[in-house]
Amino acid sequence: MRGVVMYGPGDVRVEDRPEPQIIAPTDAIIRLAATCICGSDLWPYRGADPITEPSPMGHEYAGIVEEVGSAVTTIRPGQFVIGSFFASDNTCEICLAGYQTSCLHREILGTSGAAQAERMRVPLADGTLVATPEVPSDDLVPSLLAASDVLGTGWFGAVAAEAGPGKTVAVVGDGAVGLLAVLAAKQLGAERIIAMSRHADRQQLAREFGATDIVAERGSEGVAKVKELTRGLGAHSVVEAVGTQESMMQAINAARPGGHVGFVGVLHGVELKGEDIFMTHVHVHGGPAPVRRFLPELIELIWDRRIDPGKVFDLTLPLAEAAAGYRAMDSRQAIKVLLRP
Amino acid sequence: MRGVVMYGPGDVRVEDRPEPQIIAPTDAIIRLAATCICGSDLWPYRGADPITEPSPMGHEYAGIVEEVGSAVTTIRPGQFVIGSFFASDNTCEICLAGYQTSCLHREILGTSGAAQAERMRVPLADGTLVATPEVPSDDLVPSLLAASDVLGTGWFGAVAAEAGPGKTVAVVGDGAVGLLAVLAAKQLGAERIIAMSRHADRQQLAREFGATDIVAERGSEGVAKVKELTRGLGAHSVVEAVGTQESMMQAINAARPGGHVGFVGVLHGVELKGEDIFMTHVHVHGGPAPVRRFLPELIELIWDRRIDPGKVFDLTLPLAEAAAGYRAMDSRQAIKVLLRP
Repeated sequence: MRGVVMYGPGDVRVEDRPEPQIIAPTDAIIRLAATCICGSDLWPYRGADPITEPSPMGHEYAGIVEEVGSAVTTIRPGQFVIGSFFASDNTCEICLAGYQTSCLHREILGTSGAAQAERMRVPLADGTLVATPEVPSDDLVPSLLAASDVLGTGWFGAVAAEAGPGKTVAVVGDGAVGLLAVLAAKQLGAERIIAMSRHADRQQLAREFGATDIVAERGSEGVAKVKELTRGLGAHSVVEAVGTQESMMQAINAARPGGHVGFVGVLHGVELKGEDIFMTHVHVHGGPAPVRRFLPELIELIWDRRIDPGKVFDLTLPLAEAAAGYRAMDSRQAIKVLLRP
Repeated sequence: MRGVVMYGPGDVRVEDRPEPQIIAPTDAIIRLAATCICGSDLWPYRGADPITEPSPMGHEYAGIVEEVGSAVTTIRPGQFVIGSFFASDNTCEICLAGYQTSCLHREILGTSGAAQAERMRVPLADGTLVATPEVPSDDLVPSLLAASDVLGTGWFGAVAAEAGPGKTVAVVGDGAVGLLAVLAAKQLGAERIIAMSRHADRQQLAREFGATDIVAERGSEGVAKVKELTRGLGAHSVVEAVGTQESMMQAINAARPGGHVGFVGVLHGVELKGEDIFMTHVHVHGGPAPVRRFLPELIELIWDRRIDPGKVFDLTLPLAEAAAGYRAMDSRQAIKVLLRP
């Protein structure tokens, strides 16, 4: 089968790879209806994360189950399923508390689970995968794929920031996760949603998703703008969806005392000084989004066509053209690239 | 009047100081029934915080109102009152959200508000001070004084850590704040309370306050012990009541994924790496405790003799012997020293 492999910074190739096989009896093999390129894939693409050997890529997936292991009981061949970037049993105490990405038996997808491919292996299929009511019509596939990571991650960011009725929510970062955090905040009932974005196309999508205000400034100027919009207080809730020192401090300083910062950007070299979180009185919570917690609800919202998170995919390419997709995201010509195997 | 002044590390003197006066019409002057030495007073005493000029000391207070400014409407001379280390209006949006230590109009007590003295000035008296139902009997004074800071701070730590029914709560730090966080966790209904302490007398008091388990180990050994007591998961809630890098990391690592760390130790030189809070999935919240939020409830619990936080005062001295009190706390001969003006 064909799959995407990263050889080094800027070097992405689509090549023949071994067909994934059932290894554990709890595995499933799925044929991908769609996959995509993640903002976090750009870290190694840009040389910010080291690549020591050719790496099969991809961790966002939706598709049809082709085969399941002998111990799989709820997932069946023929179902259309969505899963998250860590496999989880969904039965341990940590999963039941809603932190499936810290599942006591969590598994990374591994090379046979690389999702930018025609097929992939998913471990712990019963715990990891959620099936749609039926095989969806093709136009729903992008939104269902979005639920696999970016929507679930933006949603977790908004939940971690305690977005809700009566709240003013600021979102730092206008990538797909940030934009979908705006959508999440809207769905969670936030009164006012401030999207922090410098790009006209992304500002437009943020408004479609529910942003009431746009702040183009960054850093301390951005913080000052958020304060200006909130009578000097700062936002109740701030979602951090970038992962740099600057964006994290922007998020913390844009929150009011007692406010909540939900951070879902993959932190790179961030160091928080004790006084930054002591004197600001903010709540800080984040990490790898436990997407599995939200999948049933997100699938229902998509199935009922109440949300359309698939709009973040502004470029669709065949899997064979993945390299062009990476280039488009790296150069910010595309917000997020969907790949059709 | 007599008051305590710190001249430099290890150099504490009781000397004549000016009588405090009403400056703003919202001020009150109180005559102290009792005051005390705070763990945070030891930072400058030990040279960890610089002292640039002779500094009147103390920020924990309970006593009788002697005089109020013309704009004070609810506090009256003759009342017995307790307040916190920051004055707050208790009417702004941040106060109403329960973060009085970040009040938009907060005031530090200042030199005329130094509490290790016979009298002190309290700004924003209506917002800052809470009166007891009557003038208390003398045996209640230590507990009421404890509410001014250490009890309120330990309580905030437990609330920030979301201590409650069904929860396992670990407390890092066996100073007065840590011990009273144990008491708070018990009052908040925690099922299991792990006090982390190496000192027999403090372990004993922790047990009296409600600790069900004692862990004497520190650092990674302490974390391992907490995990051992919690089936490998870690505590739901951890209160950090020290303020060093080691204690903060001990608290974060002792919490389970999705757990809550409430930190109330005054952080000194602490730096949190992004991945420490990203991959652990903990909630982190703390800062200067908004004691005012809890004062009415704490005073009621003390008044009804349902809690006895005054037990943390294991040495009582006349104000004139404050220097001996500092020495006793510095050498850990005393947990906390009460001073009688």
